[in-house]
Amino acid sequence: MIKIGIVGGTGYTGVELLRLLAQHPRAEIVAITSRGDAGTPVASMFPSLRRRLDLKFEDPTTAKLQDCDLVFFATPNGVAMEQAPPLLDAGVRVIDLAADFRLKDVATWERWYGMRHASPRWVEQAVYGLPEKARTTIRDARLVANPGCYPTAVQLGFMPLLEAGLVDVDQLIADAKSGVSGAGRKAEVATLFAEASDNFKAYAVPGHRHLPEIQQGLSIMAGLPVGLTFVPHLTPLIRGIHATLYARIQREADFQEIFEQRYRGETFVDVLPSGSHPDTRSVRAANACRLAIHRPQGGKTLVVLSVIDNLVKGAAGQAVQNMNIMFGFPEDDGLQQLPVFP
Amino acid sequence: MIKIGIVGGTGYTGVELLRLLAQHPRAEIVAITSRGDAGTPVASMFPSLRRRLDLKFEDPTTAKLQDCDLVFFATPNGVAMEQAPPLLDAGVRVIDLAADFRLKDVATWERWYGMRHASPRWVEQAVYGLPEKARTTIRDARLVANPGCYPTAVQLGFMPLLEAGLVDVDQLIADAKSGVSGAGRKAEVATLFAEASDNFKAYAVPGHRHLPEIQQGLSIMAGLPVGLTFVPHLTPLIRGIHATLYARIQREADFQEIFEQRYRGETFVDVLPSGSHPDTRSVRAANACRLAIHRPQGGKTLVVLSVIDNLVKGAAGQAVQNMNIMFGFPEDDGLQQLPVFP
Amino acid sequence: MIKIGIVGGTGYTGVELLRLLAQHPRAEIVAITSRGDAGTPVASMFPSLRRRLDLKFEDPTTAKLQDCDLVFFATPNGVAMEQAPPLLDAGVRVIDLAADFRLKDVATWERWYGMRHASPRWVEQAVYGLPEKARTTIRDARLVANPGCYPTAVQLGFMPLLEAGLVDVDQLIADAKSGVSGAGRKAEVATLFAEASDNFKAYAVPGHRHLPEIQQGLSIMAGLPVGLTFVPHLTPLIRGIHATLYARIQREADFQEIFEQRYRGETFVDVLPSGSHPDTRSVRAANACRLAIHRPQGGKTLVVLSVIDNLVKGAAGQAVQNMNIMFGFPEDDGLQQLPVFP
Amino acid sequence: MIKIGIVGGTGYTGVELLRLLAQHPRAEIVAITSRGDAGTPVASMFPSLRRRLDLKFEDPTTAKLQDCDLVFFATPNGVAMEQAPPLLDAGVRVIDLAADFRLKDVATWERWYGMRHASPRWVEQAVYGLPEKARTTIRDARLVANPGCYPTAVQLGFMPLLEAGLVDVDQLIADAKSGVSGAGRKAEVATLFAEASDNFKAYAVPGHRHLPEIQQGLSIMAGLPVGLTFVPHLTPLIRGIHATLYARIQREADFQEIFEQRYRGETFVDVLPSGSHPDTRSVRAANACRLAIHRPQGGKTLVVLSVIDNLVKGAAGQAVQNMNIMFGFPEDDGLQQLPVFP
Repeated sequence: MIKIGIVGGTGYTGVELLRLLAQHPRAEIVAITSRGDAGTPVASMFPSLRRRLDLKFEDPTTAKLQDCDLVFFATPNGVAMEQAPPLLDAGVRVIDLAADFRLKDVATWERWYGMRHASPRWVEQAVYGLPEKARTTIRDARLVANPGCYPTAVQLGFMPLLEAGLVDVDQLIADAKSGVSGAGRKAEVATLFAEASDNFKAYAVPGHRHLPEIQQGLSIMAGLPVGLTFVPHLTPLIRGIHATLYARIQREADFQEIFEQRYRGETFVDVLPSGSHPDTRSVRAANACRLAIHRPQGGKTLVVLSVIDNLVKGAAGQAVQNMNIMFGFPEDDGLQQLPVFP
Repeated sequence: MIKIGIVGGTGYTGVELLRLLAQHPRAEIVAITSRGDAGTPVASMFPSLRRRLDLKFEDPTTAKLQDCDLVFFATPNGVAMEQAPPLLDAGVRVIDLAADFRLKDVATWERWYGMRHASPRWVEQAVYGLPEKARTTIRDARLVANPGCYPTAVQLGFMPLLEAGLVDVDQLIADAKSGVSGAGRKAEVATLFAEASDNFKAYAVPGHRHLPEIQQGLSIMAGLPVGLTFVPHLTPLIRGIHATLYARIQREADFQEIFEQRYRGETFVDVLPSGSHPDTRSVRAANACRLAIHRPQGGKTLVVLSVIDNLVKGAAGQAVQNMNIMFGFPEDDGLQQLPVFP
Repeated sequence: MIKIGIVGGTGYTGVELLRLLAQHPRAEIVAITSRGDAGTPVASMFPSLRRRLDLKFEDPTTAKLQDCDLVFFATPNGVAMEQAPPLLDAGVRVIDLAADFRLKDVATWERWYGMRHASPRWVEQAVYGLPEKARTTIRDARLVANPGCYPTAVQLGFMPLLEAGLVDVDQLIADAKSGVSGAGRKAEVATLFAEASDNFKAYAVPGHRHLPEIQQGLSIMAGLPVGLTFVPHLTPLIRGIHATLYARIQREADFQEIFEQRYRGETFVDVLPSGSHPDTRSVRAANACRLAIHRPQGGKTLVVLSVIDNLVKGAAGQAVQNMNIMFGFPEDDGLQQLPVFP
Repeated sequence: MIKIGIVGGTGYTGVELLRLLAQHPRAEIVAITSRGDAGTPVASMFPSLRRRLDLKFEDPTTAKLQDCDLVFFATPNGVAMEQAPPLLDAGVRVIDLAADFRLKDVATWERWYGMRHASPRWVEQAVYGLPEKARTTIRDARLVANPGCYPTAVQLGFMPLLEAGLVDVDQLIADAKSGVSGAGRKAEVATLFAEASDNFKAYAVPGHRHLPEIQQGLSIMAGLPVGLTFVPHLTPLIRGIHATLYARIQREADFQEIFEQRYRGETFVDVLPSGSHPDTRSVRAANACRLAIHRPQGGKTLVVLSVIDNLVKGAAGQAVQNMNIMFGFPEDDGLQQLPVFP
């Protein structure tokens, strides 16, 4: 049993971490912090956890996080870069579910996130935690930057094509649709039920913070800088991301076979049979990415469909997967729940 | 490991049984039948089960159900009464998730279900499987009639009051709201997304088939015939039942305490603190019933709020709970998944 | 053309007033105020009004409201009681869509709304604007208190029974379900899409502010104080209220006929044929209340089903109906849009 | 008052036509047919029309359609090509809301629709009814082929770019998302609430019937054959289409200005200010298309966002608009309802 701390457990990512870790056979949550809700039993805020999780939120300043083997940061951007370094220096391993350590180029990070970075040296040491790409380096990482939700869906969908050099890297398109939980558990008019229900819209078309993150990842896969048009949309789901990816074929290949080979042996990436259309609900509440590859009308444009649950494979589940890798546990420990259908 | 057969696995109750049993440590599904889909891999119909359930639907006539320890019937009303008796006679134990064996009075059953009953003798032997009421008899049952979804929510909510003789049994009211999966996985206009979404309505107010089932159960609890007004409603949820129960107080008591005592030790019934309002999502995808008791304005009317997931505690989860009791397993085997929130 | 002012046009009630008044043949909106959004074009905030409404929000202190024939207050509780009296004194007629002038007993109002009432003398003069009950007095009213959404649905459902003295007034029950827009356009976690979608719950069971309003209205109808249990629920609709009403029969009558006679000639109340179940969508976006009367199993409990769109007949539409009555216009002017189905 | 007949009024397109025509000042519905529901009052099937539409469904064989000035076909594909020609020959004008007369190339039509075309000569005479492209020819048309929903959203979004020759016509991409009403009012499992709610998926990626229709339209606009990748998705809305369109810039221009000029004077096409993101709800229940143009990161890919209500501008509303043009009525007669928000 390793000891786990969670900083910032009142958002959707935090409560999803709680759901998964409470069912994990080798991890025990010993501390969870929340500045505003210190003293409140976690199960009072989240009745779904009643009788299964007997913890109170603690004040971040008094919680004994330095005694933990691993601390998850499920905080807004800008918190982990301040609070993680002392823990790291004390030998605690850290997984940050926010964006603080995702971009290797600090200047780029500062431009997109509109603040000064507090610990560039840890940016350097951080490992970008996409297990299907970086499993070996994650194993020994002290600090893992857990990928964003859109970046997970988009990178897993493009990876086999880019690694194999099959498509034109100058004109990749990712048309991505996210459920509303992706916007977080913040009181805002735009994500009220009466606003977001029975409605569909694109947002942040001029530029979304996940764009540089995806570009960084795809460029590493391709071995050269990629040109990407990324259009996120808000869709009336609670959970789920569907990324529809478009790439111009540059070199012919058996694309279905390329994907199947690339993901052979991966527990959490499932390449569907040719001709399939994955539903977001087929991964609801589970740590899985399902992919399908199409070549409509036999043309020059390849279409990849990629679905994940934004809170699981796109956040908390992937974080637990990274934890499992870091501590040498079976990679699917605590992640075996089947998707919930219907 | 006991051997499990499922008759009729293509509906929502069936696929939910599959989800739960695939994660059960002591039960193995060895056969699942479907007349229309024989030969189809289960995971082709339900991609959420891909790579976790390697079974094909079999023709009911050739499936080796008689080699099973237990067969679940997840079939439309009228099927189990025909097909279960031969299995029962062969020593196979049976849990029927439909209504065939729920009503002890065969004439009443025939009136409400509009068909002749094919095996009245098994009606007599069947045990009505509400574990919190009938745990001991379930243990030795050969045939369990798994309660309906509304009846589970309503009976668990009224039980403590009726057993203790605290309310007027002549004027009970159950105003119940169900998610749309309760209508089953049948192609029908009334439950299309474009019909049932953003809409709310009562239905079957003159008489719903669950009325006699609830009345039978409540009358047993009260020890005398009860008068019940039961109004079901369709609400745009996938899963969930919320029963709002009204009873006139006849004898004063500490009602909160009565409920807490009655359900002390029950794993799957959770009495919330006084003043609470349970959400259906607090039990989503989990085998749980949460209850809250109110006495608005200190008046003579008691209000009980009762929520379940209609597919779990209202169907497949309760069936697995019954199976666990019948075979002497820990009652929460395979039922420990936490509710999915958000 | 009468001149209309709207105070507080940024909530759902306000924008619905705009939608209806922009299509009204005899009313012209000349001013709309919002402290926070002064200077913003209305159609920038609400793109559904683009190219149809060419107005900007004005600061409340500078808007020329005293030149209007009628001013609507679509403000939070407590605003109209401060700002309406000067306008009233200047001869402007006022319709308040909030609760400031609904309760005749000021002490009761102060208890439920938790503030001191600023203009008790106008409470006395205010007319409670339920047209089907008070059409004649509305005609000459200077100040109309527009009924709440739940109170409209519940009162229209009980009125024929109470006026005719057919039911036990001591044990009325109103089990009411509302769409989420009823909670207003305020940034709050509880009404976020990810919280309110795929979820159902009761709330405010110990006491909701609409309880005294409904009781006041029903007591007037019955001619004596009534005992009411009122349980509101939140259901994942954008718009719509479904009230399920229960009453014990005290005197036999042809209840269907009683309702049909009572509402004969009413443009906006539709009594459905015996045996019907009104959907909320059958009144979506329209100024209508549809009612159905049931007597389940021929018992002593009568069940009335009452549906409205909370933003139309439950708020802005009823306000326009009141305006039409006050100014001698045809009662359905600007209110002839058909419900939107599906 | 012109006399209107509707063939096939029991689907969503049919009932939407009824809603719009019942509010039209110069058109009177005199006959509506349905083979299966002859004799049923229309308002029994669609209670939203109660007290506003006093018509019964008639048998197609006895309805006096030849006395009408105009007959709408709101029937499945393949019906109008059989039943419209006799009416046309009798001098009745016809608008077909299905696909029978949309494709000029009969062989292509037969391949995509899997049946033999029954009246190729009328295909030749039919006018494709996209008013913003073909207003003048629609005016004198005897037979109008009303465009499909996706084709309307996609063509209006690409038209200004193609007419002006600004983009590479070989690699157009239309990533389109539709609400579930687009699938029609047919009993099918895939569009049940419990299947389509809280779910998102692409479908028909290998080839959708709207592909050749869109290609035909775009090719006319471009003056040469276009290459189009079209990926439709199902999203949990009742109504609404959001098309996200991608094109490679070939010639620089002020794209915003190009769009504004092209649609200047168009009542039903609204070009939003630069930087906007149109919501589907901003056109809900209204005959409108809203467009926004983006050039993310100043790159070579142009992104056009196009939203319509699939049942209005994508079907019944556009049909009424075509009727208005054909009969010389103001183009917005009966189409002035404001969108319903929220």
